[in-house]
Amino acid sequence: MIRAAILGATGYTARELLNLLLRHPEIEITALTTRQDTRLPVAESHPSLRGRLDLVLENLPLEEVAARADCVFGCLPHAASAAAVSELLDAGCRVVDFSADYRLNDPQVYAKWYGVEHPDPRRMPETVYGLPELFRESIRDSDLVANPGCYPTAAVLALAPLLKQGIISPKGIVIDAKSGISGAGRTPKPNLHFPEANENLTAYNIGQHRHTPEIDQVLSVWAEVETAVVFTPHLIPMDRGMLSTAYAEPVRDITTESVLQALSVFYAKEPFVRVVEHSPSTKDVVQTNFCDITARRVGGKVVVLSAIDNLMKGASGAAVQNFNLMYGFPETTALL
Amino acid sequence: MIRAAILGATGYTARELLNLLLRHPEIEITALTTRQDTRLPVAESHPSLRGRLDLVLENLPLEEVAARADCVFGCLPHAASAAAVSELLDAGCRVVDFSADYRLNDPQVYAKWYGVEHPDPRRMPETVYGLPELFRESIRDSDLVANPGCYPTAAVLALAPLLKQGIISPKGIVIDAKSGISGAGRTPKPNLHFPEANENLTAYNIGQHRHTPEIDQVLSVWAEVETAVVFTPHLIPMDRGMLSTAYAEPVRDITTESVLQALSVFYAKEPFVRVVEHSPSTKDVVQTNFCDITARRVGGKVVVLSAIDNLMKGASGAAVQNFNLMYGFPETTALL
Amino acid sequence: MIRAAILGATGYTARELLNLLLRHPEIEITALTTRQDTRLPVAESHPSLRGRLDLVLENLPLEEVAARADCVFGCLPHAASAAAVSELLDAGCRVVDFSADYRLNDPQVYAKWYGVEHPDPRRMPETVYGLPELFRESIRDSDLVANPGCYPTAAVLALAPLLKQGIISPKGIVIDAKSGISGAGRTPKPNLHFPEANENLTAYNIGQHRHTPEIDQVLSVWAEVETAVVFTPHLIPMDRGMLSTAYAEPVRDITTESVLQALSVFYAKEPFVRVVEHSPSTKDVVQTNFCDITARRVGGKVVVLSAIDNLMKGASGAAVQNFNLMYGFPETTALL
Amino acid sequence: MIRAAILGATGYTARELLNLLLRHPEIEITALTTRQDTRLPVAESHPSLRGRLDLVLENLPLEEVAARADCVFGCLPHAASAAAVSELLDAGCRVVDFSADYRLNDPQVYAKWYGVEHPDPRRMPETVYGLPELFRESIRDSDLVANPGCYPTAAVLALAPLLKQGIISPKGIVIDAKSGISGAGRTPKPNLHFPEANENLTAYNIGQHRHTPEIDQVLSVWAEVETAVVFTPHLIPMDRGMLSTAYAEPVRDITTESVLQALSVFYAKEPFVRVVEHSPSTKDVVQTNFCDITARRVGGKVVVLSAIDNLMKGASGAAVQNFNLMYGFPETTALL
Repeated sequence: MIRAAILGATGYTARELLNLLLRHPEIEITALTTRQDTRLPVAESHPSLRGRLDLVLENLPLEEVAARADCVFGCLPHAASAAAVSELLDAGCRVVDFSADYRLNDPQVYAKWYGVEHPDPRRMPETVYGLPELFRESIRDSDLVANPGCYPTAAVLALAPLLKQGIISPKGIVIDAKSGISGAGRTPKPNLHFPEANENLTAYNIGQHRHTPEIDQVLSVWAEVETAVVFTPHLIPMDRGMLSTAYAEPVRDITTESVLQALSVFYAKEPFVRVVEHSPSTKDVVQTNFCDITARRVGGKVVVLSAIDNLMKGASGAAVQNFNLMYGFPETTALL
Repeated sequence: MIRAAILGATGYTARELLNLLLRHPEIEITALTTRQDTRLPVAESHPSLRGRLDLVLENLPLEEVAARADCVFGCLPHAASAAAVSELLDAGCRVVDFSADYRLNDPQVYAKWYGVEHPDPRRMPETVYGLPELFRESIRDSDLVANPGCYPTAAVLALAPLLKQGIISPKGIVIDAKSGISGAGRTPKPNLHFPEANENLTAYNIGQHRHTPEIDQVLSVWAEVETAVVFTPHLIPMDRGMLSTAYAEPVRDITTESVLQALSVFYAKEPFVRVVEHSPSTKDVVQTNFCDITARRVGGKVVVLSAIDNLMKGASGAAVQNFNLMYGFPETTALL
Repeated sequence: MIRAAILGATGYTARELLNLLLRHPEIEITALTTRQDTRLPVAESHPSLRGRLDLVLENLPLEEVAARADCVFGCLPHAASAAAVSELLDAGCRVVDFSADYRLNDPQVYAKWYGVEHPDPRRMPETVYGLPELFRESIRDSDLVANPGCYPTAAVLALAPLLKQGIISPKGIVIDAKSGISGAGRTPKPNLHFPEANENLTAYNIGQHRHTPEIDQVLSVWAEVETAVVFTPHLIPMDRGMLSTAYAEPVRDITTESVLQALSVFYAKEPFVRVVEHSPSTKDVVQTNFCDITARRVGGKVVVLSAIDNLMKGASGAAVQNFNLMYGFPETTALL
Repeated sequence: MIRAAILGATGYTARELLNLLLRHPEIEITALTTRQDTRLPVAESHPSLRGRLDLVLENLPLEEVAARADCVFGCLPHAASAAAVSELLDAGCRVVDFSADYRLNDPQVYAKWYGVEHPDPRRMPETVYGLPELFRESIRDSDLVANPGCYPTAAVLALAPLLKQGIISPKGIVIDAKSGISGAGRTPKPNLHFPEANENLTAYNIGQHRHTPEIDQVLSVWAEVETAVVFTPHLIPMDRGMLSTAYAEPVRDITTESVLQALSVFYAKEPFVRVVEHSPSTKDVVQTNFCDITARRVGGKVVVLSAIDNLMKGASGAAVQNFNLMYGFPETTALL
């Protein structure tokens, strides 16, 4: 049994992660931390877990976390996360980090987009980006995996193989993405108040979302092309689910069938990517770790659509998939 | 033209009220107050009003409000409201008060349910309850009208005529009520955060909601019976709309048809109550000032269902209806 | 491995059941039937299952179903179900029937509420009602289990122990129940069209819902009291989740604490019933097999609230719980 | 008083139109047609109108419609509409047609996209496109106005001025549009069944939506540029509201401020277009005739966002705006 801890266990990704870990036959959950000082039974924070997990949320020192856990899932905000994670790694834990801290390679890019100096810049360039479809082998050997952002997961799975194979041009890519509101986290905010967000639709952080450099970096590292994607996220009045609609220029004249074929071949052995002919619905992937992808040739563009559950393949499901790779368990354990 | 002001103009009821007042041919909006010190254009708080109303939210002294307005609509929280309203009345304004402050007659009942001493107990027993269907004539002559709570409006319209005519017993009445989430106001709270409230259903304040004594009092004053209703409100994942499902014992054996007939006769001339044979849908009354009512005899009970828009007939529409009565305008002005 | 078939595998309960069966280590799914003649891959009907289950929906003769399966889950409409189930039982299958056909004991009551003669009246009185909390031992030994209706599950779990212990009176019980829209099935209907059902709230089948006699019968059989519940179901604009708010008269003066205590003791060892002090939220039980219950003494009533997922504890989760009992597997297998 | 009729009065656009016409001081509604033979009170089809409009839906011959009405609002499906409209025009009625029939100029383009021969090709090239912001003067003089599609309204208002002024290039324009589900009409369909459409998000008719040639034509006619827009509509789980996110290449280097300035100047006197600096929310325009627009320069693109209510500025509100122009009433009558 692997002893697992969660740092920052009060949010939505932690709750989804707990649901998965409880189903994992090789995991024992041993510590849940919070930055609040009250010792709260986890069911007070996540009532859906009542009767399933008899643990207390604790404001634990990191050495205690390291003593209790082999593997730590970090659900802390950026900057706070790297500060804790670096210490846990030094203490011998393996870590899957949900924050953005180890996704970017370049401390200066990080400082520009996140507005703070990175607390652990040394590890940035060497940390593996936890998208198994692109970096599976490196994940297996890593003690630290940077769990990808939800938008990058959806967009990169759609675009990366087509870029690498020279089917679409790296220039002029537009990613119009739509996310359910759980992606904005559990902290109440005026624009996420039910009567404001319900029956409403809006774009946010137009051209300024922090997932933009993450997408460009992963495409650049893996597909070896320089992109400068135009990325517009939208808030959709639903709990969970994410759809990315990406527009790119074909390098040569190419049919819908050829693009679908290229995607199908590339993902043929992937357990969690389904290349489909129909237009993907988020509802088909919600509560699962699947990513459904399709593509169309439309006029001067190739349109690639990809749907995931932002809390699963876009967060906690991906983390468990990474965990399974890190520890040599079947990749789908607890996920199917 | 009647010059109108709104106290506390940043909430949902104020926004709905502004929409109605802008359509009213006899009203000029002259002041909008806020307790914050910034002078904010109203469109900053209510973007839907951009280009329609060129006013600023101001932290105005009450004498300035009184100087600018003939009629004041009070949208302040309880206790704060009575403190302001009493001063405005003394300064010669007429007032429609949305708060609970003047709905109850008895200062002790108020203190028990609201947890504070009433700032203006003298006016409590004499203030008219602004439900035109029961108190139309008194409303016409009043300088102060207590705009009813949303749950009491739905429940009282359903029950009052049947109690007065001795069709149902005052004993053992159950009111199971359901409200859209705008009824909980505009302040973000954890349980009203979109991913918590959406796709969720829960009862709240079971047996302890402050509208309970209001319902009992109005039924007692108007129908001259003593009730002790059991009232359970529920939060429904929708913006607006309210359904009250009331259960009472018939005094004598009576058919569905007879109950419907009694309601139809009683409301025959009412412009905003529609007695229907089908089960009322909130969607048929949302964005309107209507209350749709039906009834059924089921086993040992009479079931009376009533649907309103909590922000219209349950708040701002009722306020305009009261305003029209107070100033002698056709009762439906700006409401149809 | 138990070979399992599903009759009528295109609906929502079948989809949920498939999700559970795929996770069950002792089950092999061997046949999925439909009444349409096309051989459709199951993923065409349930795209969320793509890549997880490589089976075809077939219009199979019952002898073929019996040849392929040890246990059959019946998801056919009433009357059609009993006709098929009786044949499968005769052929040696064990059956969990989701339809209403074997829930009622009395053919005449069935004919009155369902408008058809029962095709297999002989088995009606002897069939066990598949609510493990009340009938666990009989379920173990049965070849046919009548899977309970969703509303009866929520209401009976709330009321049965209090009736049996003489805490509440069998007279004058009101059950005001609210259900997500998946409970109405997968067939498109005008009132379930998204723009009609969304942001809407209405009661339906007031006093005439077919689950009424089912509730009365189970309370009568198990708690040995005669009830005539007044039952009003409401349609809530959400996918899934069900809340029952039941009102009963206390037999003697009793506190909230005592009622909660009685419920807690009764359900102490139940794996899927959680007696809670807070007001239950459907969102805490959705996607789970749990039923969360609380109670309050309010004025002259005891109010008992219970929340389930209508597709899980109200349908497919209960079916798997029954299956586990029938075959001697741990009761929570595939359900936690 | 202008006598007005509605052809095909059972759908959502007709219901919204009725709400507006009832508020219009210069209109008398004299006929509502349906293709069904029962004479149904309009409140049976639209219960929200009960008590407000005492008319019957009738399967009227067109000569009877022409005898009763000066102006006819056509809400029939394409092809059926032109057949009826041409007859009504010949009989001397003026017509606002909601269908697509008179929007396109070219019968061959119509036949290609709509799959039928146009019944009245002669009038196609000469009919004015009812977008007052671009074609106000021609609308005033017309007896037939083609009410625009909802997607074209949102997209064209965003793009037309920027194209005409040479700010953005006509090449490579992408329109990623999102609509509430009322845009799909009132007929129940499997994908619009509440439990399918709710909490779901999907693109549809990718690159094949019939509004594509309409957008290209209007931009070409008015802005005198040839576009071949790539248009992807998405279905959003909400009743109403539409957001268009358009991506175009700037012709020259240009800032966000300059684009906003160009839009602000162009729309300065328009009563229903609001150029805003924030990201537009559909909720700010729902239930109104407004279109809120903003723009951003992002990398190599100009992003232009526009929000409307698909049933108002995208349908019935636009129709009333056109009616007001045709009859010389203030353009905002019944719309503010």
